[in-house]
Amino acid sequence: MVTAVDIRPATPNDVPLILSFIKDLALYEKAPEAVVATEELLHKNLFGSERRYAEVIIAYVEDKAAGFALFFHNFSTWTGRPGLYLEDLFVRPEFRGLGIGKKLLTQLAHIAKERECGRYEWVVLDWNEPSRKFYEAMGAKPQTEWVIYRAEGKSLDDLAAM
Amino acid sequence: MVTAVDIRPATPNDVPLILSFIKDLALYEKAPEAVVATEELLHKNLFGSERRYAEVIIAYVEDKAAGFALFFHNFSTWTGRPGLYLEDLFVRPEFRGLGIGKKLLTQLAHIAKERECGRYEWVVLDWNEPSRKFYEAMGAKPQTEWVIYRAEGKSLDDLAAM
Repeated sequence: MVTAVDIRPATPNDVPLILSFIKDLALYEKAPEAVVATEELLHKNLFGSERRYAEVIIAYVEDKAAGFALFFHNFSTWTGRPGLYLEDLFVRPEFRGLGIGKKLLTQLAHIAKERECGRYEWVVLDWNEPSRKFYEAMGAKPQTEWVIYRAEGKSLDDLAAM
Repeated sequence: MVTAVDIRPATPNDVPLILSFIKDLALYEKAPEAVVATEELLHKNLFGSERRYAEVIIAYVEDKAAGFALFFHNFSTWTGRPGLYLEDLFVRPEFRGLGIGKKLLTQLAHIAKERECGRYEWVVLDWNEPSRKFYEAMGAKPQTEWVIYRAEGKSLDDLAAM
């Protein structure tokens, strides 16, 4: 039997749901205290009138919200085009094994092609072998020569004060 | 003697200059053939009426264009806020040693704070020790546990076709 999965773009009404997915994912990553996002911030930054920094799609199984993906556009100077960057993907435990994660991933590849993106990217923890194998089986290549640097909190304040 | 460096946001008139910076940087990275960006693509994707995917600031020394930085906003679900992502930074060889690179970097930290970003990020090649030391001296932390995965070209087409 094939499970019917329906994927739809999120609306402002979905903010509480999105925050619950974010919290569930952080719990799975053993860092529930790291979530300082609030419904207010998500309203402003995902659906605000000023600037929308990211988009969300939600996967439904028989009208039950089963998982989500949050993405935004980056930009490659070499290609002169935007890329699509997948920031977060989560499927609720009771809906795993139905191919929902893969469906969310491939739906974003569709969106990337539709919007003429040159690349589709995401990050994974280096010790997460099952995910790395899954992504490589899907044809994605690890960019192991690049290291991400980050300034946040005090180091960002210090840089801005220089 | 202190060199006066003026940093200004790029305008559509700067597209040929931006493309020349992108090509000079690719040459420095020994990959000039990798630049497939065109003025048309940069006009559309940086200054178009539909969607602007990235922003550019340009550093001038006595009204001569000395360097540039291209950045965009990413998004962190944990913070619920945008971040600022520095994609490219380049200073022309004849203007090096004047602190222009650092000035571009710190200007973006200002912009990140102004726009209430939670993070300021960029990537560096893992063998580029001088840059890594420079960034660490400025307080940025390497996120060595994360590996970037990328689908592009055929692998992106294949994913979208799944």
